[in-house]
Amino acid sequence: MNITDQGLAELTTPCLVLDEAKMMRNIQRLQDHADALGVALRPHLKTAKSVEVASRVLKDGMGPATVSTLAEAEVFAKAGVTDILYAVGIAPQKLDQVIALRQAGTDLTVILDSLELAQAVAKASRKSGVAIPALIEIDCDEHRGGFAADDPLLVETGRVLHDGGAELRGVMAHAGESYGAVGKNAHARYSEMERSATVAAANALREAGLPCPVVSVGSTPTAHAARDLTGVTELRAGVYMFFDLVMAGIGACKVDDIALSVLTTVIGHQEKRGWTLVDAGWMAMSRDRGTASQAVDQGYGIVCDEQGQVLSDLIMTKANQEHGIIEQRPGSTAPMPDFPIGTRLRILPNHACATAAQHSGYNVLPSTTGHPLMNWPRFGGW
Amino acid sequence: MNITDQGLAELTTPCLVLDEAKMMRNIQRLQDHADALGVALRPHLKTAKSVEVASRVLKDGMGPATVSTLAEAEVFAKAGVTDILYAVGIAPQKLDQVIALRQAGTDLTVILDSLELAQAVAKASRKSGVAIPALIEIDCDEHRGGFAADDPLLVETGRVLHDGGAELRGVMAHAGESYGAVGKNAHARYSEMERSATVAAANALREAGLPCPVVSVGSTPTAHAARDLTGVTELRAGVYMFFDLVMAGIGACKVDDIALSVLTTVIGHQEKRGWTLVDAGWMAMSRDRGTASQAVDQGYGIVCDEQGQVLSDLIMTKANQEHGIIEQRPGSTAPMPDFPIGTRLRILPNHACATAAQHSGYNVLPSTTGHPLMNWPRFGGW
Repeated sequence: MNITDQGLAELTTPCLVLDEAKMMRNIQRLQDHADALGVALRPHLKTAKSVEVASRVLKDGMGPATVSTLAEAEVFAKAGVTDILYAVGIAPQKLDQVIALRQAGTDLTVILDSLELAQAVAKASRKSGVAIPALIEIDCDEHRGGFAADDPLLVETGRVLHDGGAELRGVMAHAGESYGAVGKNAHARYSEMERSATVAAANALREAGLPCPVVSVGSTPTAHAARDLTGVTELRAGVYMFFDLVMAGIGACKVDDIALSVLTTVIGHQEKRGWTLVDAGWMAMSRDRGTASQAVDQGYGIVCDEQGQVLSDLIMTKANQEHGIIEQRPGSTAPMPDFPIGTRLRILPNHACATAAQHSGYNVLPSTTGHPLMNWPRFGGW
Repeated sequence: MNITDQGLAELTTPCLVLDEAKMMRNIQRLQDHADALGVALRPHLKTAKSVEVASRVLKDGMGPATVSTLAEAEVFAKAGVTDILYAVGIAPQKLDQVIALRQAGTDLTVILDSLELAQAVAKASRKSGVAIPALIEIDCDEHRGGFAADDPLLVETGRVLHDGGAELRGVMAHAGESYGAVGKNAHARYSEMERSATVAAANALREAGLPCPVVSVGSTPTAHAARDLTGVTELRAGVYMFFDLVMAGIGACKVDDIALSVLTTVIGHQEKRGWTLVDAGWMAMSRDRGTASQAVDQGYGIVCDEQGQVLSDLIMTKANQEHGIIEQRPGSTAPMPDFPIGTRLRILPNHACATAAQHSGYNVLPSTTGHPLMNWPRFGGW
């Protein structure tokens, strides 16, 4: 079936197109891998921010799930997700909202990496009578927050939680540096850094007589490359549902796995400069230039035809707010194809989290052949 | 009055804070300049995307105005703006919506830069009986679209519009390259490029017996630097209402003029690395790194205290989706201030258009002392 017949031609551009079949394949691949490794998968919903996607990626639609904002926790809790990890260090001002969500029946867990925050969480727990569960963040790659596994403050922080009225639920790490490493072997080394750091931290807590039921690790590159997760209880990843050019550039997926694209319309040409102008600029693509530091810079994205066939020599080289400029990629000697005004193209994004966030919904090409285009809303905010 | 008392302390972070007094000062400054130059000001509403801001920047709230999407045209038309220029080359698929807006009473003008599009606009005009007004885009700086002023296709395109049932309303140019030039003299040269190219194009049309009542130019840097706009009828600019670090970096404003910031909360520290972690990442700031190519790279933004006082040595050096990392700027030898967990900070953005687009509303510090914080919604989409 020609994709145009499914309703793409009726859409106002620019807009997101999501290929459900590719998404389901990506979802299944990581679920199979987690099953083979014997760990639970806790998908991160920050990329999709869609109840429809959540219902397809979560077991029975209920979790476990990871979120990056309390707005996500609110929406997904309302949609029936019962087990949610809010994986950004909890601001003390947000604890009342956490307590309210727990009181409404959601098993919401927070993370923290300081004695100060443990004290705040313990105090809020005592005051409300709601024992807030917390994971302590472990720094495995000097990427962001977290205690080193051998930091004596780790055990002290665990004790403040455990003895102070909160619930010390475990430890977690995220090897964000893996996004800058290329190839499965490199990602496997980061996975082992996540594993060894969190297991060491869990052991330190347990040796001090503290509980540590959860040992949580993950990122899209490390989750796919993990070979042995002994001691780990759960794996987190988010962008793998859609994938993107940054992930393709580090070998975490193939370009053909990318399920998300931006549909756009040709609005002009500057033939002397070899430019085709389209109506998707950075407002539609985001300003993310994640591939700029990779071996192959994909500009603002690789161009596909309306059917999604990759035109691999063509990239969006420049973007203004509502204008994109499409050119042959540097080094290419192929002639610029003729795209008459009104031609529809699709652009694969650098970073699916950032591109999706520029839009209020997905136009979904359904897995089932012959079904019409679906529209799945997405949300933002905090 | 302490700003915290006005209600900032109650806000969920991250969120936008807009200083109304600074905004009104920025609005007035350019209006005065346009008045002195004897041209109409046609503010671009793409930065603000807010009916409340539009009502403060437009004469009688009615226009003239510029927009970057038809979604903006729809919202502002509904809010009573009657004179709107849609300043992105019109995709043929969007002409029905243009006609519907005109039929509903909005004087909506489109732009185009090709014979093909002129034919499409003329055809749609004839078919609907609605003469769609169009400006022909002129390329003054090889930045994006547009005809060279001496391109014979310009007159041919004008004739297709005029003779074909559309309305040839004039010409327009935007010196986007001025964003990369530093200082008022450089911006004035770009302003003269806009002026001379559009006036030459207008003369070419008139000499061919075609009408050209509108000669429209502008960008924030060129609008402020313009010294003589003989032959020009209107000036466009958008980001000047809020300003940002990119504009400060090229001398189009001072840092103190920036009316927009992102309020954030400290959630952690990595003392060994000199990092303070906050809950505003790129989702709140955008991925725009417009100052990266300037003389002073401001990272993801300059840090201010909650009151808006600039802490000029501190910038957000790194951003993940929901984490920002604050450090001393490179070369600074000052010690890192102690920001206890829970501290509120404000971050000035690289690019106000991009940062504002990450949020659904503005928390507005009112010009009138003693008044409470206001919330102005903003919208996105196409």
